[in-house]
Amino acid sequence: MLPDNERHHQWVARDEEVVWHGFTQMATFAANSPLVVHRGEGRYVFDTEDRRYLDAISSLWVVTLGHCVPELNDALTRQASRIAHSTLLGNGCDATVLLAEALAEVVPVDRPRFLFASDGASAVEQALKIAYQSWRNRGVTGRTLFAALEGAYHGDTFGALSVGDSGFYSEAFAPLKFPVVRGRNYSDLARVVSENADRLAGVIVEPLVQAAAGMACHESSGLLEVAAACRAASVPLIVDEVATGFGRTGSLFACNEAGVRPDIACLGKAMTGGYLPMSATAVTSSLADTFLGPDLSAQTLYHGHSFSGNALCAAVALRHLDLLSEWNVLANVKERSVQLAEGLDRIARGRPVVSEVRSKGLFAAVELDTAAVGDPLLARKVCSRAVEHGVVLRSIGPAVTTVPMLTSTYDEIDRIVWTIAECIDEVGRG
Amino acid sequence: MLPDNERHHQWVARDEEVVWHGFTQMATFAANSPLVVHRGEGRYVFDTEDRRYLDAISSLWVVTLGHCVPELNDALTRQASRIAHSTLLGNGCDATVLLAEALAEVVPVDRPRFLFASDGASAVEQALKIAYQSWRNRGVTGRTLFAALEGAYHGDTFGALSVGDSGFYSEAFAPLKFPVVRGRNYSDLARVVSENADRLAGVIVEPLVQAAAGMACHESSGLLEVAAACRAASVPLIVDEVATGFGRTGSLFACNEAGVRPDIACLGKAMTGGYLPMSATAVTSSLADTFLGPDLSAQTLYHGHSFSGNALCAAVALRHLDLLSEWNVLANVKERSVQLAEGLDRIARGRPVVSEVRSKGLFAAVELDTAAVGDPLLARKVCSRAVEHGVVLRSIGPAVTTVPMLTSTYDEIDRIVWTIAECIDEVGRG
Repeated sequence: MLPDNERHHQWVARDEEVVWHGFTQMATFAANSPLVVHRGEGRYVFDTEDRRYLDAISSLWVVTLGHCVPELNDALTRQASRIAHSTLLGNGCDATVLLAEALAEVVPVDRPRFLFASDGASAVEQALKIAYQSWRNRGVTGRTLFAALEGAYHGDTFGALSVGDSGFYSEAFAPLKFPVVRGRNYSDLARVVSENADRLAGVIVEPLVQAAAGMACHESSGLLEVAAACRAASVPLIVDEVATGFGRTGSLFACNEAGVRPDIACLGKAMTGGYLPMSATAVTSSLADTFLGPDLSAQTLYHGHSFSGNALCAAVALRHLDLLSEWNVLANVKERSVQLAEGLDRIARGRPVVSEVRSKGLFAAVELDTAAVGDPLLARKVCSRAVEHGVVLRSIGPAVTTVPMLTSTYDEIDRIVWTIAECIDEVGRG
Repeated sequence: MLPDNERHHQWVARDEEVVWHGFTQMATFAANSPLVVHRGEGRYVFDTEDRRYLDAISSLWVVTLGHCVPELNDALTRQASRIAHSTLLGNGCDATVLLAEALAEVVPVDRPRFLFASDGASAVEQALKIAYQSWRNRGVTGRTLFAALEGAYHGDTFGALSVGDSGFYSEAFAPLKFPVVRGRNYSDLARVVSENADRLAGVIVEPLVQAAAGMACHESSGLLEVAAACRAASVPLIVDEVATGFGRTGSLFACNEAGVRPDIACLGKAMTGGYLPMSATAVTSSLADTFLGPDLSAQTLYHGHSFSGNALCAAVALRHLDLLSEWNVLANVKERSVQLAEGLDRIARGRPVVSEVRSKGLFAAVELDTAAVGDPLLARKVCSRAVEHGVVLRSIGPAVTTVPMLTSTYDEIDRIVWTIAECIDEVGRG
């Protein structure tokens, strides 16, 4: 039997030999204290040596209730005993219908139709194509432009990358991206929409928090301005709720909090409670109806991913939606959000290296003044140190971020705050 | 208790009220004899009224061994008892490592690294971005062009749509697609590659069969020509094995049959035996190594889907790969492929309405002379009729297509052939 650390290093070596990790520099993967996860329980993950870590990033913003939730496992197993998957191209599946009916009750979209996919980026691509084609289907040509926010992130496929801004060096792909007009913030975007009213195919925004930009937070009033500008210009508003949907901000959808009802909403990440890949594009029936026409005609949306509406994913997503309400999860999110925000303020106090703290619901960032310290990897080092304290965080540029699960306890939030503070101090001391 | 047909119509009505089906004209959805599937067993699906249908399209080319395979259900349940998902951004998961190691043994890519996603289109997008960025990472600029085949289909997101040809009215999206040079066939593509050698970022092809183009079949020799042209021009060859991978053509990968080893292979659809959404981009280590550099640098691939390497998907995919070999499935595919091809010839004989039959492994198309008959919906009607005979087929334009499961029996293939012939005759008689 090898010592724990040696076994761990073997797993890391096997991992980097065959797996390419997204958004990860593989040359420094092993040096950044990676976990190789073997199992999970509630808010904790355990590595191959059965060492326990608090999953304070919800496995990258997807896990809501916890790992290995008996109720979700039951839903998965029950559906597996019936069928795992049947195609939605031309046919249907009752598990998918049941999920879509339940979602229709809660998404902030009028009389919604759901086009399912698996990756969140695909839900965004679907939204862009639906907005674009809806004009052509109504006989309007020349609307080839989209409007989006500065600092936007909507996913990594070329359409999603195009509406996203230049973060993460994505300007390298500029020759392959389509052109987009941008607003600096919601108010500015509302102006851009009005000024380009007659050439826009659609407008896309992240509601209230731009998580990938390092938890940039925005006011509801601004989102209402964008929605009003879209309505005035008769341009479809697409809201990307992939990160915010299913409770992380304290509302089931961020749009609910803002009182905005978009024409299209993109869902993903937390849709299955973080169990399985599922995404969806929710479209108002009035927009969807512009696609009705003769069979095999150009009016049809010729877009469909193989595992659209997958029955296993649908069954888990449906049970997850029930549990969010049965367990009154949003009430806990609201309490823990206040606690987390107060904790961030405590971290900032008396630590000049902390340049700003930001949070919205259970999305939180502690931005470090890496320039003053002269170390661009400072946030990364803080997160590596946190692993030694048994807490999984994630850095985004100069920011240390945490995205706790919706069921987090008082003590767990307390521990996250305390660990971030401690690790900043430890790394600061060198 | 409602009569079966009435209950069925209720399910269809509930379905079309909330679900948008991909590649489906929703105005005619209900008229095209849709199933609403409730459960599956082996090669059969059962609708909400427990009526049984032979799934002769493998739920759109994804199911391999059958529905509800006890061994795959076991793998799913076992993994669920450990963990459903943990993020691959910066961390690892042992279930994903085990799958990648097993895939590395069999994919036709030298010393492969696997970047996982969920939708097949995402695997293609990843391949395009990796080919493109690899040039920039080596200090070469100006290579912004991709080469692809006429009739190509690589998925529906904007990058995949760009390398795809103009099928399914996709020219409507031309203003948002990036430019691509095309070859009429493999030989012509080899010429295009040579002529554009110094401005190509990469070349993408479907190997041996262009399934979405209605099962257009190509010779291995042509694919070898493309590979040679790419090697001579030092341009990465991307092979899209999303439809062909995991045995449907009679080889585990179509590249194996052609003796081609691409720089990048895209995997999807049948990867989990048709259970769950999982896709992957397999990249040679020499190409992947061009992305090594300092942490947080521009050399990094900033692309990563949330559910990349999902543990539940990985566990099912790993067991599926074992079963393909344990059950000697490819031997059956080869026998059934010969039987199916002979059956198609029998269908064509003495039926002037059949203009051509085509097959490659268990991908098969019976093309109807819809122009002569003056009915563009003829193939659609044949497929609707087949549902009454308890067999699920799918039309692509003028072609009736079948894609049987890899474990199909002699009698099942016989029934598929007989049903297609019978339904063509019945619809022909009006």
